[in-house]
Amino acid sequence: MKVDPERFLSDLHQLRSYGASGVGKGVVRPAYSEADLEARGWLAERFEQAGLRVEVDAMGNLFGLAEGPSLLMGSHSDSQPEGGWLDGALGVIAALEVARAAKEAGGPAISVVSFQDEEGRFGVTTGSAVWSGQLSLSEADGFADHAGVTLKNARLAMVDMVTGDVDAAQFTGFIELHIEQGPTLDTSGEQIGVVTDIVGIRDMKITFEGQQNHAGTTPMHLRRDAFQAVSTFNALINDRFRNVVTPSTVWTIGHVSLHPNASSIVPGKAVFSMQWRDGDGERLKRMETVIRDAAQEVADDLGMTLSFGPMLGLEPVEMDARLRAALEQGAETVAQGRWRTMPSGALHDATNVSRLMPVAMLFVPSINGISHAFEEDTSETDLVAGLEVLACAVQALGQATGR
Amino acid sequence: MKVDPERFLSDLHQLRSYGASGVGKGVVRPAYSEADLEARGWLAERFEQAGLRVEVDAMGNLFGLAEGPSLLMGSHSDSQPEGGWLDGALGVIAALEVARAAKEAGGPAISVVSFQDEEGRFGVTTGSAVWSGQLSLSEADGFADHAGVTLKNARLAMVDMVTGDVDAAQFTGFIELHIEQGPTLDTSGEQIGVVTDIVGIRDMKITFEGQQNHAGTTPMHLRRDAFQAVSTFNALINDRFRNVVTPSTVWTIGHVSLHPNASSIVPGKAVFSMQWRDGDGERLKRMETVIRDAAQEVADDLGMTLSFGPMLGLEPVEMDARLRAALEQGAETVAQGRWRTMPSGALHDATNVSRLMPVAMLFVPSINGISHAFEEDTSETDLVAGLEVLACAVQALGQATGR
Repeated sequence: MKVDPERFLSDLHQLRSYGASGVGKGVVRPAYSEADLEARGWLAERFEQAGLRVEVDAMGNLFGLAEGPSLLMGSHSDSQPEGGWLDGALGVIAALEVARAAKEAGGPAISVVSFQDEEGRFGVTTGSAVWSGQLSLSEADGFADHAGVTLKNARLAMVDMVTGDVDAAQFTGFIELHIEQGPTLDTSGEQIGVVTDIVGIRDMKITFEGQQNHAGTTPMHLRRDAFQAVSTFNALINDRFRNVVTPSTVWTIGHVSLHPNASSIVPGKAVFSMQWRDGDGERLKRMETVIRDAAQEVADDLGMTLSFGPMLGLEPVEMDARLRAALEQGAETVAQGRWRTMPSGALHDATNVSRLMPVAMLFVPSINGISHAFEEDTSETDLVAGLEVLACAVQALGQATGR
Repeated sequence: MKVDPERFLSDLHQLRSYGASGVGKGVVRPAYSEADLEARGWLAERFEQAGLRVEVDAMGNLFGLAEGPSLLMGSHSDSQPEGGWLDGALGVIAALEVARAAKEAGGPAISVVSFQDEEGRFGVTTGSAVWSGQLSLSEADGFADHAGVTLKNARLAMVDMVTGDVDAAQFTGFIELHIEQGPTLDTSGEQIGVVTDIVGIRDMKITFEGQQNHAGTTPMHLRRDAFQAVSTFNALINDRFRNVVTPSTVWTIGHVSLHPNASSIVPGKAVFSMQWRDGDGERLKRMETVIRDAAQEVADDLGMTLSFGPMLGLEPVEMDARLRAALEQGAETVAQGRWRTMPSGALHDATNVSRLMPVAMLFVPSINGISHAFEEDTSETDLVAGLEVLACAVQALGQATGR
């Protein structure tokens, strides 16, 4: 089979036009936004033109299905509030091109998917979490974004596209191509990373409630300042994690919302996000204990009411040996001596899909390791190299299974 | 002269209906909001009905003027994003009632004012700062609120009401009645506080810029996390202030805005408010040095770009002896043995007006010391007591000046 780099790159740039930020190649295409819906509409047409049957489940996961048993490939087409043009989009368009090339070559059968809300406007990889049965749609429907919009209401925007459930039994495995989103390949000058495993993640909202009051007339010793609670909590976990983490462990407070958030008012309430990632499930658990204990101590010391949101989490996942071997074979063919095996520090839909079938992942470099930002980019040479490794792997797998 | 408590309380509740939050007696009436404009329109009618000449300057400060030289009384009718029904409103309506009663009694001549943006949507007591000439309108026009709206654009909403500049030379002095907004009077069970001086205040925005990046793939040691900078800065000044402040000194980080503020992204930028207050101008200056040095050290340590917004500030102000004596005499008449002299920890328009004429202030209790919140309240008995002290003082001053 022969993939077409021009057709692939042209579709990739076309997808970028939906929600283009106007800053570099950046996109603003969060799940269920107008730009996201337009992009999914365009993708559906592309899938049909490729001879795939389009199906959309209630979550908004978009499938292009081959007949009979097939290998599923893809990623997601929603973006971060301020995202790059390749995060997710690369895996979807590469899968589309491989499916087209395979059809033209008479096989093997390739199906394509763009999962919904991988970037977690509502949860964490919400679309694939629901499709893989780890999260019920009714529970997910209760999740709200930072603006207070519930998933249940957001989903209404694409109800017209929904065809029904998509049975996972028809798929023999799942392969996802993605940008690395880190500095490793770019620094080493390598073109391809074959993923060995995906780190686990925990994410929850924490709320401190104190007493909103006047910033001029409330003596310091009488204050119950919710921002001071967040700041104290942050210092405490940074200190305590030192005895728990490894150099590859990460943790982030990326969202902070003070109430009422005015300079002359002692903040009465603070809601913030606490996220942590590691390859070891046991370590994730130990970190959770540090977090919950520290938050409780701060709440007790500063006279705060403390509440924890639901903890969204995904366990570390090992890639499937057979699919991974096919990718390594393809990497050696396409980028001899310029590829490596590596873990994924970022979370991906493959983590959820691994509950249903064998999965594997492939990385191409992120320039300067930058992602989740408008500057995110990868050289087109590397993008095409990733596409070609996929094609080689698919061919090898097809031959192995006699297709 | 005889004030009318019923008329006074009924007007006070009427004003509360503009921007009523529906939570307790709370109001949402920020400067230049629709509710603020409607309230000012209603006040203008009330001023006319009281035989006062209505004038509005370019900032939106609303005056009801008596003929010839007069004593100016009033406060402000804009509110905090989530404010109480008395903060500012009490002083405006009490002034209106005293002006009406004085007119009915044939003098003395009382003018009334409701200053604009006392709550600092754009600056700090912006309306009276511009009127008193401490801040030029062109400079103020450049200030933006937290949503990025400039004062210049916000002012357009009330351009139809503007009549022109109002000459301060016609006023012999300024008296402002206000709720205490602190716990002192409520705790001691006293009805009246005669203010001795108003503390000084400093307020500025501080911005740390680091590098926005993916929260899963960016190792901790390579991060330039703007939230970590804010948290570290906060801990540092809390520690260093211990050697500088007194028990009555206060400082607050009440507004924090992270960018892009998403749980899976290392924050690349943080803008936050730093406000501090004290009765000693020298101490305010020493605190500023601590703040600027600490911010610079944190920026250097964590690889941040640092920038300071314009510093808005007001010096501590002593009340005028003559006006204050009249208020003390009135307090002793109305609330014998149940009043005290006290400093004001909160900032008021009187601070700015003191640049133009003698000023004095009067406090009534705040239940539980709560203000800048929907729960803010004061017993109607105490509200009326405050009104009557004003009336006595005005009468005494009128007699003293032979009117």
